[in-house]
Amino acid sequence: MSGNKIGEMFNVTTFGSSHGTALGAIVDGCPAGLELSRDGIQAELDKRRPGTSKITTPRSEKDQVKILSGIFQGKTDGTPIAAVVQNRDMKSSAYESLKNTPRPGHGDYTWKARYGHYDYRGGGRGSGRVTIGHVIGGAVAKKLLRTLNIKVLAHVTQVGNIKAQKIDFSKINSEITDFNENSDEMNEFNEIKRNIEKNSVRCADLEAAEKMENLILSMKENGNSVGGIVETLVLNTPAGLGEPVFDKLDADIAKVLMGIGSVKGVEIGEGFRSAELSGSQMNDEFYINGNNVKTKTNRAGGILGGISNGMPIVARIAVKPTPSISKLQKTVNMKNMEDAEIEIRGRHDPCICPRVTTVAEAVMAITIADHLIRGGFINPCKLSM
Amino acid sequence: MSGNKIGEMFNVTTFGSSHGTALGAIVDGCPAGLELSRDGIQAELDKRRPGTSKITTPRSEKDQVKILSGIFQGKTDGTPIAAVVQNRDMKSSAYESLKNTPRPGHGDYTWKARYGHYDYRGGGRGSGRVTIGHVIGGAVAKKLLRTLNIKVLAHVTQVGNIKAQKIDFSKINSEITDFNENSDEMNEFNEIKRNIEKNSVRCADLEAAEKMENLILSMKENGNSVGGIVETLVLNTPAGLGEPVFDKLDADIAKVLMGIGSVKGVEIGEGFRSAELSGSQMNDEFYINGNNVKTKTNRAGGILGGISNGMPIVARIAVKPTPSISKLQKTVNMKNMEDAEIEIRGRHDPCICPRVTTVAEAVMAITIADHLIRGGFINPCKLSM
Amino acid sequence: MSGNKIGEMFNVTTFGSSHGTALGAIVDGCPAGLELSRDGIQAELDKRRPGTSKITTPRSEKDQVKILSGIFQGKTDGTPIAAVVQNRDMKSSAYESLKNTPRPGHGDYTWKARYGHYDYRGGGRGSGRVTIGHVIGGAVAKKLLRTLNIKVLAHVTQVGNIKAQKIDFSKINSEITDFNENSDEMNEFNEIKRNIEKNSVRCADLEAAEKMENLILSMKENGNSVGGIVETLVLNTPAGLGEPVFDKLDADIAKVLMGIGSVKGVEIGEGFRSAELSGSQMNDEFYINGNNVKTKTNRAGGILGGISNGMPIVARIAVKPTPSISKLQKTVNMKNMEDAEIEIRGRHDPCICPRVTTVAEAVMAITIADHLIRGGFINPCKLSM
Amino acid sequence: MSGNKIGEMFNVTTFGSSHGTALGAIVDGCPAGLELSRDGIQAELDKRRPGTSKITTPRSEKDQVKILSGIFQGKTDGTPIAAVVQNRDMKSSAYESLKNTPRPGHGDYTWKARYGHYDYRGGGRGSGRVTIGHVIGGAVAKKLLRTLNIKVLAHVTQVGNIKAQKIDFSKINSEITDFNENSDEMNEFNEIKRNIEKNSVRCADLEAAEKMENLILSMKENGNSVGGIVETLVLNTPAGLGEPVFDKLDADIAKVLMGIGSVKGVEIGEGFRSAELSGSQMNDEFYINGNNVKTKTNRAGGILGGISNGMPIVARIAVKPTPSISKLQKTVNMKNMEDAEIEIRGRHDPCICPRVTTVAEAVMAITIADHLIRGGFINPCKLSM
Repeated sequence: MSGNKIGEMFNVTTFGSSHGTALGAIVDGCPAGLELSRDGIQAELDKRRPGTSKITTPRSEKDQVKILSGIFQGKTDGTPIAAVVQNRDMKSSAYESLKNTPRPGHGDYTWKARYGHYDYRGGGRGSGRVTIGHVIGGAVAKKLLRTLNIKVLAHVTQVGNIKAQKIDFSKINSEITDFNENSDEMNEFNEIKRNIEKNSVRCADLEAAEKMENLILSMKENGNSVGGIVETLVLNTPAGLGEPVFDKLDADIAKVLMGIGSVKGVEIGEGFRSAELSGSQMNDEFYINGNNVKTKTNRAGGILGGISNGMPIVARIAVKPTPSISKLQKTVNMKNMEDAEIEIRGRHDPCICPRVTTVAEAVMAITIADHLIRGGFINPCKLSM
Repeated sequence: MSGNKIGEMFNVTTFGSSHGTALGAIVDGCPAGLELSRDGIQAELDKRRPGTSKITTPRSEKDQVKILSGIFQGKTDGTPIAAVVQNRDMKSSAYESLKNTPRPGHGDYTWKARYGHYDYRGGGRGSGRVTIGHVIGGAVAKKLLRTLNIKVLAHVTQVGNIKAQKIDFSKINSEITDFNENSDEMNEFNEIKRNIEKNSVRCADLEAAEKMENLILSMKENGNSVGGIVETLVLNTPAGLGEPVFDKLDADIAKVLMGIGSVKGVEIGEGFRSAELSGSQMNDEFYINGNNVKTKTNRAGGILGGISNGMPIVARIAVKPTPSISKLQKTVNMKNMEDAEIEIRGRHDPCICPRVTTVAEAVMAITIADHLIRGGFINPCKLSM
Repeated sequence: MSGNKIGEMFNVTTFGSSHGTALGAIVDGCPAGLELSRDGIQAELDKRRPGTSKITTPRSEKDQVKILSGIFQGKTDGTPIAAVVQNRDMKSSAYESLKNTPRPGHGDYTWKARYGHYDYRGGGRGSGRVTIGHVIGGAVAKKLLRTLNIKVLAHVTQVGNIKAQKIDFSKINSEITDFNENSDEMNEFNEIKRNIEKNSVRCADLEAAEKMENLILSMKENGNSVGGIVETLVLNTPAGLGEPVFDKLDADIAKVLMGIGSVKGVEIGEGFRSAELSGSQMNDEFYINGNNVKTKTNRAGGILGGISNGMPIVARIAVKPTPSISKLQKTVNMKNMEDAEIEIRGRHDPCICPRVTTVAEAVMAITIADHLIRGGFINPCKLSM
Repeated sequence: MSGNKIGEMFNVTTFGSSHGTALGAIVDGCPAGLELSRDGIQAELDKRRPGTSKITTPRSEKDQVKILSGIFQGKTDGTPIAAVVQNRDMKSSAYESLKNTPRPGHGDYTWKARYGHYDYRGGGRGSGRVTIGHVIGGAVAKKLLRTLNIKVLAHVTQVGNIKAQKIDFSKINSEITDFNENSDEMNEFNEIKRNIEKNSVRCADLEAAEKMENLILSMKENGNSVGGIVETLVLNTPAGLGEPVFDKLDADIAKVLMGIGSVKGVEIGEGFRSAELSGSQMNDEFYINGNNVKTKTNRAGGILGGISNGMPIVARIAVKPTPSISKLQKTVNMKNMEDAEIEIRGRHDPCICPRVTTVAEAVMAITIADHLIRGGFINPCKLSM
């Protein structure tokens, strides 16, 4: 009810802000019996951590997570998993000048309108740093999905006007029957994954990745920033996930993805392109494959009538350019209620897309995990042993 | 939790299916003291009613609503408002042949995967007819918004590849200080509204509207269908609406819009175009206008950091072509688990966009009403008198 | 969030008031595949119906239920079950004099404080008549429990100072292994049930029942009323029902029972008597019975640490005397804000306990059904077939 | 949904177990602008802390709380308040022998039934130690209530068969118009408060308190334990708190109080005694007092029709004797599925009532705070300044 919780049966409540003492999350509703260690969560946090390449913010945070509860003898015990990350490299002074002058494109002004004040130190809880909580929750969710061999993957498909070559995940899926990490059938998927890890932009198309990186660096040099598109994929979900009418799987996905800071659009499958298609172009025809009903095309993006159909779930988000730019901008002084100007210093990512991939994977994993439990695909209390 | 409820403080629970006895909704959390009559709700239902023009389905339903509770002496009394619409013109026989062969692009197959069966009569609860419940809830919400002079409007901006001229709502808003229906300042807005009412496509650009109508009719003649884009606008919301982090206003809007059947994409403000912009192009600069903080541009679409900034809220949705087409399609027979073919008869809209406008307005109004109460802008128990 | 919904996964939203058009409920979250008919629901409503004996209100309502949705070919289809009962025998005129003078012991004054007005016609939504919604929900829940042979039973154990002989349900349970309706082991339980049906007070002790009936009739003649105690029993729940810490099974039971109008106390197992016991007197020792862990005593009332232990769940509620009495009482005139007097006419039950039994069974069944689904004991989407 | 959260608008999510790393809570939905310090929370924790008198467990925990988020410049900032307490004096070895033999009267067996295992170290999350989370939440809630001069107080009224003299809080309330801490009219209330602080039993009747202490000590010497009754009072709530039908104020109070470990009964106002009363004895008559409607008696315990009437809210709970006793008891060995015996060592409170008072105050304060926001009595975003 207060906006800091996501999920129903499998749910994550987060806390903390950019320049406070600590950030973290309580993951509740994870069944007992799941093998879980601090290291598994740390690995995900390391992926979203700042200061790891020349295209991210130079703010240097180790982001070491500490688990406070919920694990007993190496496994979840059915109680809430609380995990905390301390803030360390805080330079609040850089923000003192922002006390009364809200930054264009940021939540400073709206936060003030709502709460009567705003935390001018790095955006407070409006900062991208709060996604540490998302990633903690996502790390647990991913571990849970792994028990069913469900894969979640996000990659950057566009930065500014540079577009990566499209990957046709439907083809991958209709041919796969063994989704084990090491199965031969997963080779193509695993190669995509490896390519994404190879470059700082997290783009599967290595040629495009290089161009994207150059574009980002040139924007950075100009004190400007640039937007992009991130695609998220979930492979091997069972058919039948999603509540009808209001809590449809695509509705819940749209909510969690749009809720990521800087996201201005969400589309599933063909998305906005479907506006231009005819019914005969859009419909995915069914066919029998062994004992399964499948579709050769996947224009629906894995969801029909709000419920998963077993094909890859494909969602894309539009990420706006980071609003923190060092160019002079017009704003207002809210104390004196007069026009003002602002130059933003601080430390920022010139393109937030690469780091958004980890967050997108996290909220997608949480949503799928939640619906797996809500739909009876995973026992809510304990994993079968 | 079961997908048939929307909203928290102001919430709507719906029931009913395409070929069952009745459809309806319970609207709960509407404060006492709101003038409300059956006619107000009926007027909204008439807008979404089928059979009203040559581009909608010929299914003829009067859709007369009956209010069962929640109104005392012409006003809401703070108790749940239950409203019901009986089904009448049901031709279930047209659907008998669909018992085992799921229609491509529809929820038949996924519904069966989830519930072990599917209601093959017109899609059952997966039918667009269930939006009667949405519209009932939206009618009450709109009435509540009217007490604060908040306007909600949806119109068709694209059908197939025909695009209407863009309306710059930010310009409208930055100049308006008196949002009363009859104020001179509202002239431009009122004219847009009148234009939308003038044509069956519900497009504000009358020239484009004619082309759209022709395209829709030609698709219909070919037994095909076509998609499009619907834009929804909310004018005069206060700044400060929306919970941070997960229940952001744009996140909740994305959820309710994506939850409408056939919607494959949602974008706010610049939406997917923001992927190609730089920060200096995207940011809306602030300025002082009388006692208010405003922005001249509105690329953010009225929402910053997940909270409304007082500028018009602008959301667009991609609507896929109606999956019910009369062309022969490949599908499967789920009883025999073998490949099959299907020709869909029944009665359908060749383009669902015009009727989606009413539903989009409804869920948007519900979401805004809910956040107005959650944010303390409207008393949850009674309107001030 | 607005108080008209109960349950999470299996949930019931109700509407309607004493003198409005209709009352009813939407039951959501019931899995598909449950055999359900109008008659099953009607049978439960008949049990709570007024005007059936000389100790209940003479208001004569047929309370014929109509099902609007959720059933397809004789079974639930996984969509919301909406059911409605029309009001007929409404004598609102009897209440006109109550417009400004709240009845002592009723919710008139507090409702006015909250909503700015109150429905003076029979208490509006504060009336006992709203439990029609509870009973509809309970009827569906009971049907669901029957698939697991779980029995719910409520009976009157005390009226004024007349107490029925205590029934030791723990003894019943520790000896039963076959909970089928027709099994020999259920004989004792079935006899209790038959005795309850035999008398208008719904008391299993037939001697006490006669005395209770006489007491109630004498209170009625004097224009007064009397309170009592209702005990509710649930037999054959699995061990493991209930969420820890806040949504404990006993916590949820306490909530739904205390929420019944006129209830002023709830106790589980030994209840208030446990205050006077020592640990060695209170603890139920465990023993092995076949393949099960059981306890011979059941002072805990079937719940330990908030989770069911497989023994009978035993809850008792204190029901206050009906506040509507015809004796002259002091009250206030809220219009003139001055002291006033009141004589309540209308038609009322001199003791509400017998009719509360049906409502207590209903909310208990709903709560158990909800926790069965939440705990993974029943599939949330479809019954196994 | 997973049992670790309480409250809707003002809500508390807790985590941690008896012998894990840490325990704590996230308090969400507290409006911005409330003065709050670590010390205010610590003071409440000190009241529930073990090892402070000879009648509590000798486990010695400093229970030093650390606040991780939600406070900015000495005031709440509208974001989640996370607070943590580290475990220190853990003697897990004392519990090794309990691995397979569930303790009678504890949740060990039921926890195992639900989660497939149980944390045998001090009850894990079933331990009374988890109420640290409750008390953190309660401390914030009390601070919020103080802005409206609302007082919450719990005291022990019975231990075993020793009963304290009854305090008639209704009398206090009908005479008070100034509820400031320092007003003369609050003298009687303040004296009761001081008396409670004077003795380790937390009983307002000092003579009875001495007898209670002696009884507790004698039970302790015998390796046994004893139950009791705790009464909780809320003074100066406005009329109008509580949702109708299912989320009634008394229903929510019943839930949170019954949810406290060891509680087996809850009653409001006359509670179980109302079963024996007639309507004319039970009803509280209204009268005008200045500009207010009041009642001279308070048999209703401050709640009518589920909504507060402005009189003191009075709730009593039955607390069972601590199940951990050192006498030999029969149990089962769940590994071998055979009968067994158990002697519980560890460190325990022979009577838990004195420490329950702090927890009862906490959950009561949380519930009132939540309903104050839900009813529009406190702005959900920011305190008026």
